[in-house]
Amino acid sequence: MTRIVTVAGAQLGPVQLADDRDSVVERMIVLLQEAASQGADLVVFPELALTTFFPRWFVDDIATTDHFYERSMPNAATQPLFDEARHLEIGFCLGYALLEDAPDGTQHRWNVQTLVERDGSIVGTFKKVHIPGHETNEPDRPFQHAERYYFEPSPDGFGVWDAFGGRVGMMICNDRRWPESYRLMGLQGVELILCGYNTPLHYAPDPSQDPLQGFHNGLVMSAGAYQNGTFVVGVAKGGLEEGVDSLADSSIFAPSGELLAKAETNDDEVIVAECDLDWCKQYTGTLFDFAKYRRPELYGPIAQP
Amino acid sequence: MTRIVTVAGAQLGPVQLADDRDSVVERMIVLLQEAASQGADLVVFPELALTTFFPRWFVDDIATTDHFYERSMPNAATQPLFDEARHLEIGFCLGYALLEDAPDGTQHRWNVQTLVERDGSIVGTFKKVHIPGHETNEPDRPFQHAERYYFEPSPDGFGVWDAFGGRVGMMICNDRRWPESYRLMGLQGVELILCGYNTPLHYAPDPSQDPLQGFHNGLVMSAGAYQNGTFVVGVAKGGLEEGVDSLADSSIFAPSGELLAKAETNDDEVIVAECDLDWCKQYTGTLFDFAKYRRPELYGPIAQP
Repeated sequence: MTRIVTVAGAQLGPVQLADDRDSVVERMIVLLQEAASQGADLVVFPELALTTFFPRWFVDDIATTDHFYERSMPNAATQPLFDEARHLEIGFCLGYALLEDAPDGTQHRWNVQTLVERDGSIVGTFKKVHIPGHETNEPDRPFQHAERYYFEPSPDGFGVWDAFGGRVGMMICNDRRWPESYRLMGLQGVELILCGYNTPLHYAPDPSQDPLQGFHNGLVMSAGAYQNGTFVVGVAKGGLEEGVDSLADSSIFAPSGELLAKAETNDDEVIVAECDLDWCKQYTGTLFDFAKYRRPELYGPIAQP
Repeated sequence: MTRIVTVAGAQLGPVQLADDRDSVVERMIVLLQEAASQGADLVVFPELALTTFFPRWFVDDIATTDHFYERSMPNAATQPLFDEARHLEIGFCLGYALLEDAPDGTQHRWNVQTLVERDGSIVGTFKKVHIPGHETNEPDRPFQHAERYYFEPSPDGFGVWDAFGGRVGMMICNDRRWPESYRLMGLQGVELILCGYNTPLHYAPDPSQDPLQGFHNGLVMSAGAYQNGTFVVGVAKGGLEEGVDSLADSSIFAPSGELLAKAETNDDEVIVAECDLDWCKQYTGTLFDFAKYRRPELYGPIAQP
């Protein structure tokens, strides 16, 4: 028996400040159609796909950046993407900034991914757990990475949903560097993890890491896939965006940790892999039979604040 | 400032059933001297270095295998190794089976590594946490992997010791496949993890993993090093032992995840790397500043039995 989900990563090249949502959605629809022509059931778009990566600028009044956030999903700008996906009977995962007015009158800013099924129904929305970067202006940097100013960390953690015939989880960008992200989904039986990212090639706190960005990106996703017996799909917004060069290297990894597909450009590009979800059991049912081999009674310090 | 520890991995080729401890210790002393000539401060030997990998055979009466276990360390057979190391002012880490008579009259069988400082003092003894394989005879396998029959799992977990001018941790073989192993040491500030292993190339429950043994071995140690900003030293007993071919590939990884040294043979061989422990801070003080970026309040399920 096989349970094959054909998954596409829809890498985006840069989205400049002057690019409006309509133009980005147009590019995404082209990628969606390309993926559909290759038989994809599911297309994964990057983190913060609809706008430029605005945390690279600091502003004193955060309200002046509200236009970078969505207020609902779908909305007028993204409805054409939802319509075309439903027409093509293809699901997708979309990363964006969400500005939420909570029932109690408070406002919340999240870095999220929404997963949409082939029939257009929304499966779930995931909020980024591990927010990297800094909270305050650091003018000595060549560019900011003020995600901790622009986004609250998720209070919810990592969920796994029944979708596309399997168990599907999500994570966003920096979440992929933390083994806890994969493990928390692994413990819920995840078979397919979807991850968008924006990763500047220059890391100001330690530039010795700059030439290793691609290596680290592949390393953590490959290891997370293997150690949890799951497919992992990582999709970049890459290339030179507002003067900041970002990693492309969108990739799909098998439960064996092996690389199945990888982008060759820094621009809009579709990668595809046929993912047989039954491959997962070859790991989760043997070497990584968690119930048999893990030692959670010794893992306490990992969960201690 | 630099804190350089020159670390050697002393890979062993096969140890056959007929090889007595004296002959193995002789080989180890040759490797120790070779490492000393290359300036090593610390030499890491494999898991179960002193005997053949006896869990490949099942016996009905475990007491008939007592001769594979040490009763104390050092002992008559290993004293020449301890003496030569002290003479050379070189520390070492040694894996072996330990049969312990507890004060309460019970007997315990452990798979352990002992770390010895340059002055001959014993730093600590680590017991393997994640015991792989099976408990009962599985005659359909071409060979057994009955570690769960021969060894109790550690009740203690992962410690980190002040030694060799840094923070040193230990793990054994299968422990290296579990991200929790590295993380539990990472939370204790580990800078150098020492890991011996015996890894048969054939994995009976899923032979599709056989050609990936070397890839998986490197993947997990590289990722564990990077994600915790620590050096990782993995040392094999490799080659064709009693008809079972085992992975060699002894390797030393940097806190960047980069490979610093790797064995080229399946036999007795020394690999060496100068490990500047201050390199660790480039990761643990930035991207992997655990206190700042981890979300332990969301990690509860990892530690739930």
